[in-house]
Amino acid sequence: MNAMTPAVAHAAMANAVRFLAVDAVEKAKSGHPGMPMGMADVATVLFGKFLKFDPAASRWPDRDRFVLSAGHGSMLLYGLLYLTGYPDMTIDEIKRFRQLGAKTAGHPEYGHAEGVETTTGPLGQGLATAVGMAIAEAALAARHPGLVDHRTWVIAGDGCLMEGVSHEAIDLAGHLRLRKLVVLWDDNRITIDGSTALSTGTDQRARFAAAGWRTLAVDGHDPAAIEAALAQAKDSDRPTLIACRTVIGFGAPSKQGTEGAHGAPLGATEVEAARKALGWSAPPFEIPAEILAAWRAAGARGREARLAWEERLALYPERARFEAAIAGDLPADFAETMAAYKADLVAKAPNVASRKASEMALEVINSAIAITLGGSADLTHSNLTISKGMTSLAADDFSGRYARWGIREFGMAAAMNGVALHGGFIPYGGTFFVFADYARGAIRLSALMGIRVIYVLTHDSIGLGEDGPTHQPVEHFAMLRATPNLHLFRPCDAVETAECWELALAARRTPSALVLSRQNLPTLRTSCAVNESARGAYVLSADDGARDVTLIATGSEVTIAMDAAKALRAEGKRVAVVSMPCWDLFEAQPAAYRDEVLGTAPRIAIEAGARLGWDRWIGERGAFIGMTGFGASAPAPDLYRHFGVTAEKIVAAAQALTA
Amino acid sequence: MNAMTPAVAHAAMANAVRFLAVDAVEKAKSGHPGMPMGMADVATVLFGKFLKFDPAASRWPDRDRFVLSAGHGSMLLYGLLYLTGYPDMTIDEIKRFRQLGAKTAGHPEYGHAEGVETTTGPLGQGLATAVGMAIAEAALAARHPGLVDHRTWVIAGDGCLMEGVSHEAIDLAGHLRLRKLVVLWDDNRITIDGSTALSTGTDQRARFAAAGWRTLAVDGHDPAAIEAALAQAKDSDRPTLIACRTVIGFGAPSKQGTEGAHGAPLGATEVEAARKALGWSAPPFEIPAEILAAWRAAGARGREARLAWEERLALYPERARFEAAIAGDLPADFAETMAAYKADLVAKAPNVASRKASEMALEVINSAIAITLGGSADLTHSNLTISKGMTSLAADDFSGRYARWGIREFGMAAAMNGVALHGGFIPYGGTFFVFADYARGAIRLSALMGIRVIYVLTHDSIGLGEDGPTHQPVEHFAMLRATPNLHLFRPCDAVETAECWELALAARRTPSALVLSRQNLPTLRTSCAVNESARGAYVLSADDGARDVTLIATGSEVTIAMDAAKALRAEGKRVAVVSMPCWDLFEAQPAAYRDEVLGTAPRIAIEAGARLGWDRWIGERGAFIGMTGFGASAPAPDLYRHFGVTAEKIVAAAQALTA
Repeated sequence: MNAMTPAVAHAAMANAVRFLAVDAVEKAKSGHPGMPMGMADVATVLFGKFLKFDPAASRWPDRDRFVLSAGHGSMLLYGLLYLTGYPDMTIDEIKRFRQLGAKTAGHPEYGHAEGVETTTGPLGQGLATAVGMAIAEAALAARHPGLVDHRTWVIAGDGCLMEGVSHEAIDLAGHLRLRKLVVLWDDNRITIDGSTALSTGTDQRARFAAAGWRTLAVDGHDPAAIEAALAQAKDSDRPTLIACRTVIGFGAPSKQGTEGAHGAPLGATEVEAARKALGWSAPPFEIPAEILAAWRAAGARGREARLAWEERLALYPERARFEAAIAGDLPADFAETMAAYKADLVAKAPNVASRKASEMALEVINSAIAITLGGSADLTHSNLTISKGMTSLAADDFSGRYARWGIREFGMAAAMNGVALHGGFIPYGGTFFVFADYARGAIRLSALMGIRVIYVLTHDSIGLGEDGPTHQPVEHFAMLRATPNLHLFRPCDAVETAECWELALAARRTPSALVLSRQNLPTLRTSCAVNESARGAYVLSADDGARDVTLIATGSEVTIAMDAAKALRAEGKRVAVVSMPCWDLFEAQPAAYRDEVLGTAPRIAIEAGARLGWDRWIGERGAFIGMTGFGASAPAPDLYRHFGVTAEKIVAAAQALTA
Repeated sequence: MNAMTPAVAHAAMANAVRFLAVDAVEKAKSGHPGMPMGMADVATVLFGKFLKFDPAASRWPDRDRFVLSAGHGSMLLYGLLYLTGYPDMTIDEIKRFRQLGAKTAGHPEYGHAEGVETTTGPLGQGLATAVGMAIAEAALAARHPGLVDHRTWVIAGDGCLMEGVSHEAIDLAGHLRLRKLVVLWDDNRITIDGSTALSTGTDQRARFAAAGWRTLAVDGHDPAAIEAALAQAKDSDRPTLIACRTVIGFGAPSKQGTEGAHGAPLGATEVEAARKALGWSAPPFEIPAEILAAWRAAGARGREARLAWEERLALYPERARFEAAIAGDLPADFAETMAAYKADLVAKAPNVASRKASEMALEVINSAIAITLGGSADLTHSNLTISKGMTSLAADDFSGRYARWGIREFGMAAAMNGVALHGGFIPYGGTFFVFADYARGAIRLSALMGIRVIYVLTHDSIGLGEDGPTHQPVEHFAMLRATPNLHLFRPCDAVETAECWELALAARRTPSALVLSRQNLPTLRTSCAVNESARGAYVLSADDGARDVTLIATGSEVTIAMDAAKALRAEGKRVAVVSMPCWDLFEAQPAAYRDEVLGTAPRIAIEAGARLGWDRWIGERGAFIGMTGFGASAPAPDLYRHFGVTAEKIVAAAQALTA
C-alpha cells in the first residue's frame, strides 16, 4: 500500500467494501448492494481514519459507537468488520451472508457478531437508538470524566429520515446538544419506489438546523471532502448532520442511481461490468493482500488508545464502581433492602394505586441502585416515575438521572434501547399503557435484542376512567404477551409491585413492561417471604378442601376476584383466587406446579382487557370476564359496572359453572 | 350584540367558549381547561368568521373539516358545537361532559356527536388524519371541480408537534402542496411536565418551512391579528402553519401559563377568580342571550353557501356518481364481476403468492370500483398494490388514484383514516405485516372509529426469508386479532384472497388487515359458489366418517396442513383440514356451525406466528405448530424446517394425539 497514493489507496479500500457486499449479495441471491456501494467511500474514511475502536476488544467501554441505521445495508458493516479484523467476522461468515446460523444476518442483529452495536432494519430506529447511546455517553462521562469520552456515529438513509421517529430523535438530540453525535446521511435520493421526489420534498439540512443541529454537506465520493467534514463534526457544540451526496449502487454502470440497485442482486453481467468500471479484478471474497493489510492497519489504529485507557482504568480510584456500572450489576445487598421494604408493606398494607406502589418501590430502588436512569414521555406525575432528589438530564448538565423524554413514546423507547446497549445504566421510562402502541417498534427491538429496558405503563385499563377509549388499553395485554422475550407484569398490590420491580431489574436479557393501575388497590398479600410473582402465578387465597371454582385475575381485577370469592364463600363455595402477574413466567414453571395452581375445578379469568389468550388458562369449560370491545368515557366505577367487570358478574358466572 | 363593539363581542364570545369548558370540567371533576381557555380566541375567529359549515347539515360534503388534534381540549370543540347550534349538542350534553353515554366524551369520539370529524386524543394523529382529509379533498375536487372546494383546519398542540407522526404528516403535506390545509399551532410552551424547554428546542416555523410550508405567527389573543393570519392562510399555494402564541389557561389568574392549568379542574376559588378576571358573571352553563345569539348567527353563516351548493348538486350532470362516491357505494354488479373472476381462478388454479393474488384481485377491483384509492409506504412492488393504469397523486395533479405514502407507515395509516372519514374514496395501503407496529396507533383508531380502511400487509411470516427477524411478524397476529372491530384476514390461496378482498370492501364500519404471503401458494379451493371466508373458517377438505384429527390453519400454512393431511390419510387416518382466514367472523357464527367445523376429534393448529390465542380453537387436548420465539435470517424453506413448521411435525403431533 505504501506504493499507492492516498487517493488510490482510498479507492482500493472502498472497492474492497463494495465488492464484499456485491459478491455476498450475489451469492446469497438476496440482499441490498446499492447502499454499501454508495456509502463505501464515506464508511472507508470513517472506519479508516476516525472511528475509535479495537477489533481485538470489541466491548471496550470507551469505544466509539457505530450504528448502521439503514440496516438493509448490512453488508457494508459486515465487510468493514471483516476488513478491520474482528476475529469472529471471517470470510466464511461473509460467504454465508443471510444463511441460517450465520453471523451475517440479513439485517445487523445485536448479539450475532462483535461490532454490531444494535439491531437495525426497522427504519429510523437506529438513529433514535444512537441518540440513547449518546445520552448514555454524556451521562457516564459526567460521572467518570477521565474515563468516558467517545462518539456515536450513525449512517442513516432517506427512509430513516422519512420515518416519524427520526423527528423525535433529532428534536431530542438537538435539545440536549449531543455534540458527540454525528449522523452521516446517505443522500442518494432513491427509495424503493423510485426517486425521493415521489414522496418527499423536505430540505433535510434546514430541518436538522431547525432542531438545533449543525449541518454540513459533502460529495460522498470525495474522500478529502468527507475527511474534512468528519474532522469538522468532531469539533462541534451540537450534534452534526453531514449530508453525503452519493450515488446508490456506485460503480454498477447500468443500475447505479436507480432503485434497481437497492434491494436485489445486481446479476452476473452487471457485477462484471462494475468490476470493470471500478477496476476491481479480484475474484469474489478475495481481497488483495496489500489492500487487506491497509484495512487491518486501519483496524489496529485504536489499539494504543485502548491500552492507554485500560491503564487509566487500572489506576482509577472508582474502578469498581465504574466496572459494576458497565456490567449492570445490582448492589449485593439489594435483595435485603427490598425484603425490608416489602416487610414494611405487608405490615402497613397501603391502599394505593399500583402506579403509586411503583413510585414507592422506586424510592427504594433509586436510592439503592445508582445506575438506574428514569424518565417519562411527559407524564412524570401520572406515571410517577421520578424519585426524590432525582434531577433531569440537561444540555449543560448530564449529572442527573431523569430523562425528560418529551411527548415521544417511540423515541423514548428507542433511546432507552440505546442507553441499555451502551451500558452503564438501567433505563426505565413511563407512558400510558395504551401508548405502548406508539412505542411498539422499539419495544419489539428491546425484546429481540434481549436487553434490560423497563417500561412503566400506567393507567392500564378502563380504570383510567374519563379519558375514554383512546386512552384505555384493551388489546395491549395480548400484544405484549404475544411478544417473545418480553415480560408483561401486572401486579395486584404494592407487594406484588415491589416483587415485579425486583424481577424486572434482575432480568438482564429480557425487557419488562410493568402494567399499573391508576386507581387505588388494597394490599392483598399478607406475606412476602417468597417472591410469589417470580413463578408468574400463585394461589393468593384458598379454602380448605376440594375447590368448587378457581378465579384467576391480574392487577386491579384481583381485588374484584377477592370480593367475588368472599361472596361465593358466603354461599358455601370453596374458592381459590389465583393472582397471575406474569404469564410467561408461569408458563415456564413445571407442569406439576401449573396444575396445582390452576386446579381441576372450573376456572374463571378476570381481566379488564381482551379475552384473546385467556383460553389457555381457563380451558374449555372456563369463563372470562373482561372487555369485548373498546372502552368508554366515564368515571371508572361506572365503567366497571357498565362493562360488567364486577364481583357480581363473577359470582353469577361461578354459579353457572358450578350449578 | 349590535350594541357591542366588535372587540367586545369577540371577547364575550370567546369567554363563552372558555367558561363552558371551565364549568364542564369543574362539574365532571376531570378534564382539560387550559387548552380551551388558551385557544378560545383563535377558535372564536375561526368558527365565527372562517370555517365553512352548517350545523343543520353536519354531513354536507363540501363543508370545511375541523380537526382538534389536541383532543384533550375536547371541551373547546363541544362548546363551539353547542354555541354554533348543532342540534344534538345540547347544554345538557355539555353538563354531562365525560359521563357514561354522553356525546361529550373525554376526548372527541367520531360518531358520538355531529361535528366531530375524527377521534383525537392520541397526539399527532389528528394532524396526520387531517392530511388525509386534505388529500381526499384535493382528489375529489380533481374529479368534481365545481362541487368540491373546502379547507381542512387543524388545531394542534406542542404534543402533536413533538410526536414523530407529525413529521410524516408535514413532510407529506408539504410535498403534495396541500394548500387548503391550515394548522393552527397552540404555541403555549407548556406540556404536562412543565415548560417545553424541558424537552424541546425545535424552531417549529423553521421546521415547517423546511417541509415546504408557509408559516405565519400571531398573538393568539389578538383577534384582529388572528383574522388577518387566517385570511392570509386562505390564499396560499402551500399548506400553512400559523403559530398562535397563547397563554394556557388564559384568564385563570394563578394557574395560567403553567402546567397547573392543563389537565385538572381549576377548583372553585380559581374559577371564581377567572370569572372576575375575564368579567364573566353568568352562572355555569348559562350563556347570556345576546352572546348565544351572536354565536348562533355565526353558526348560520354557512347556510346560504350550503343551499347554493345543493342547488349546484341538483344540476350536476354526474350527481349520481358523486353521491355514490360520497356514500361509498360499490357498483351494483360488483358481486357478479368478482364471481366471474373467482370462477376463472378456480379453473386456472394459479400457484402464486397471496400478495400476487391480491394484485390480481386488485386489477379486477380497481377496474370495477372507481373510488378505491391505493397506495403503499414505499413498497409498491413488494406489496403489489398498484394496478395497471393507476397514476400517482402529485402536487400538481390529483387526478390519480395511487398515493406514494413514502416510508411513513404511521402517517399512511392516519392519512387513510382521514381519507375514509372525508368520504369519496375507499383507501387501501400496503406495508410489510411487521411494520403494522409502526402504524399501530392509527390502525387502532380505524377500528375504534369504525371506518373502512384496508391494510395490505404482505410478507406475513418467516416465509419472507432472508430479511430476518426484524422483518418477520410473530406476535402481530395476536396484536391485530385482539383489537376490537378489526378483521384480520389471512387467505390461503388466490380464491380466498379474492373472497377476503370482497369482505373487506363490504365492511363499511370495520377496517380490515389483509395478511399476505411473500411465497407462492397453490390454489386449494375447487369451488367458489359460496364465499367461504365470510364465515371465518370452514372445512376445506374432509374424509368421510368420523374424524381422527382436525388440522386448523391459516394462510400459507394451510398448504402445509394439506400436505400433512395427505400423509396422514396414507396412514389410514380420517382428517379434516379447516381453513380459518378470519377469527372474528368465525367467532360470530352460530355455535352449531362452529362446533361442526371444529369437530370433536383432537385438533392441531398451524400458523407461523405466536401461539397466543390459539387455545381458544384447539382446546385443552390440542396441539399448536408455530413459532415460540422470534424468527431468523435464512431462505424461507430453511426457516420453516428450522422452526418445525412442517408437514412432518404436524403428522408427528397428530400421531401423538391419536395414539
